[in-house]
Amino acid sequence: MSLLTSVDARTSPLDDFGVLLDDALREFLGSRQGADGELGDELRRLTLAGGKRIRPTFAWWGWRAAGGAPRADAVVRALVALELLQTCALVHDDVMDRSSTRRGKPSVHEALAARHRRERWAGSARHYGDSAAILVGDLALAWADDALVTAGLPADALQRAWRPWQDVRTEMITGQHLDLQAVARREESLEHAVRVAALKTAAYTVERPLHLGAALAGADDDVVKSLREYGHSVGVAFQLRDDLIGVFGDSSVCGKPVGEDLREGKRTPLMAIALSRAQGNPGAQRLLRRCLTASAVSERTVDDVRALLVDLGAVAAVEEHIEVLVATGLAALERADLEERACDELVRLAHRAVARTT
Amino acid sequence: MSLLTSVDARTSPLDDFGVLLDDALREFLGSRQGADGELGDELRRLTLAGGKRIRPTFAWWGWRAAGGAPRADAVVRALVALELLQTCALVHDDVMDRSSTRRGKPSVHEALAARHRRERWAGSARHYGDSAAILVGDLALAWADDALVTAGLPADALQRAWRPWQDVRTEMITGQHLDLQAVARREESLEHAVRVAALKTAAYTVERPLHLGAALAGADDDVVKSLREYGHSVGVAFQLRDDLIGVFGDSSVCGKPVGEDLREGKRTPLMAIALSRAQGNPGAQRLLRRCLTASAVSERTVDDVRALLVDLGAVAAVEEHIEVLVATGLAALERADLEERACDELVRLAHRAVARTT
Repeated sequence: MSLLTSVDARTSPLDDFGVLLDDALREFLGSRQGADGELGDELRRLTLAGGKRIRPTFAWWGWRAAGGAPRADAVVRALVALELLQTCALVHDDVMDRSSTRRGKPSVHEALAARHRRERWAGSARHYGDSAAILVGDLALAWADDALVTAGLPADALQRAWRPWQDVRTEMITGQHLDLQAVARREESLEHAVRVAALKTAAYTVERPLHLGAALAGADDDVVKSLREYGHSVGVAFQLRDDLIGVFGDSSVCGKPVGEDLREGKRTPLMAIALSRAQGNPGAQRLLRRCLTASAVSERTVDDVRALLVDLGAVAAVEEHIEVLVATGLAALERADLEERACDELVRLAHRAVARTT
Repeated sequence: MSLLTSVDARTSPLDDFGVLLDDALREFLGSRQGADGELGDELRRLTLAGGKRIRPTFAWWGWRAAGGAPRADAVVRALVALELLQTCALVHDDVMDRSSTRRGKPSVHEALAARHRRERWAGSARHYGDSAAILVGDLALAWADDALVTAGLPADALQRAWRPWQDVRTEMITGQHLDLQAVARREESLEHAVRVAALKTAAYTVERPLHLGAALAGADDDVVKSLREYGHSVGVAFQLRDDLIGVFGDSSVCGKPVGEDLREGKRTPLMAIALSRAQGNPGAQRLLRRCLTASAVSERTVDDVRALLVDLGAVAAVEEHIEVLVATGLAALERADLEERACDELVRLAHRAVARTT
């Protein structure tokens, strides 16, 4: 075994991609320093403030699994697009959810409103912050496309990648809309909650990024199908874990206040399962519904709901679903001829995506 | 003269392009009928509700002026992108400005809030309308890129077009931001007002669309320079006319209530000139400042400000600037070797853009 191979074995290949991606991201954002003023500043601040780069990472291993080369600078530059799309999603999501923090710092609309107050500008600080944040998100979405088109990909690779890229953007946006409608329409069914998770997270975060990477590599249909099946199952499992962390986890880990999902009345599969199990238990139903519909929920109520979710067995049921989904996803990897090392990495990523701490 | 030529001479070539563009727009929007639900419905409703298609039209004549063929289906399909970008701009602008009508119908956020009320959904109707409208704008922006990339352009034409396309999106977004900041920072200078007009309208509406069309045709630097100079001057003149129509015009023509710019305290060149001419006239200054800073302005005040704008000579000054700008723009057309018929059409478009009624 050569020295190089043994170094490779010790250094995680995932970490290598992370470094390359962050370099490409910084380079792209640096090249766009111009007339964009505070919009560009906020875009750069949020994008470089952290984040697990999970979408580009899945896309990279989709590329590698389909036979793409381990060094491919244009592909790394192209995957910057997925991270900028995520910046757009976060900024607009925070305006819609009125979230005040993101990645452990003030959310973009909060930071812009704070500037308005600090500078004693005219008009409503909140309205200014929301409006400018809408524009920051728009800029991130436009720049995402720029990153993909100007990455230096061969023309045929760009055209192949465009279909999943088109789909991932539409799915991200319609997924956010389903989420919004679920609250408005008081959706309580498990079916609807799983549909949102499938579109908003599985498709947007795992399945389509893998599809995009595989399309860049010119993968055949079997490879794309196997990766997408893996992506769908692991993606839903990832959302279920995220829901549990959002209710029980540590805010220093998830970057936003714990319990926020409960306070916002998010219609998660966890809540749908709990509601279904609470049938015949009016007290439990009342408590859950208060959480789903009240505009302000006390810390005490949040604690009570946490205990109830455990007592009803909803947490255990979700843990079990996560296990089944991961097993289903890993089985899908065996149904096509994928590059071996990339396949190992996808197994590792699946376990990491659903780990209790991240 | 053949029958065909005489038919061509009677039919405006502009109108021919308008028909081709609307067909391409309908075809694109029809092809995207899918899982997008009310977001896609609203996007289609607004986009097809009217509009003068001014940006694609300038882009088309930029293409033709630089020697592009009169029949070019892929180019027409590509220019659908500019109209979808405008849909994004209108939807997000209306959320930011809290405008209730657009193209003579309820604005997108109003229509979505009305649905929320009609269906007696949970939570705040206004918040739902604003949030879903943010997503409609995002979808329009994503689809704009799709229209350009999937138009079937040769790969080199797409790469050439991307630079002005990248610029037009960033300029549209930063132009809206400058507008927002002008109100917040109580900007009163003519210089700033002209800068906003140059970025928000001249670049976004005329100069970059022409640049985009010329780039598709592989124009040389001289042609691009001449078209951009024309576009800059005619674009600023167009904005000055639009400001006058917004204050004095007929709401059935401009599709939104007359006087809205005054009620919103928009910092236009017209207002900057009036403020500058009102120096030494405290009563006039007070009236203008009330219009620029008050959150609600009465119909009576709007009438008084209209009369004042005329009395101070601000309206006459703006009319004169429009004339000078159009002449400057037309002179720029003579500094390069442009296709003759397209050149005639650009002269006609310049006059049409600044006509007192549209």
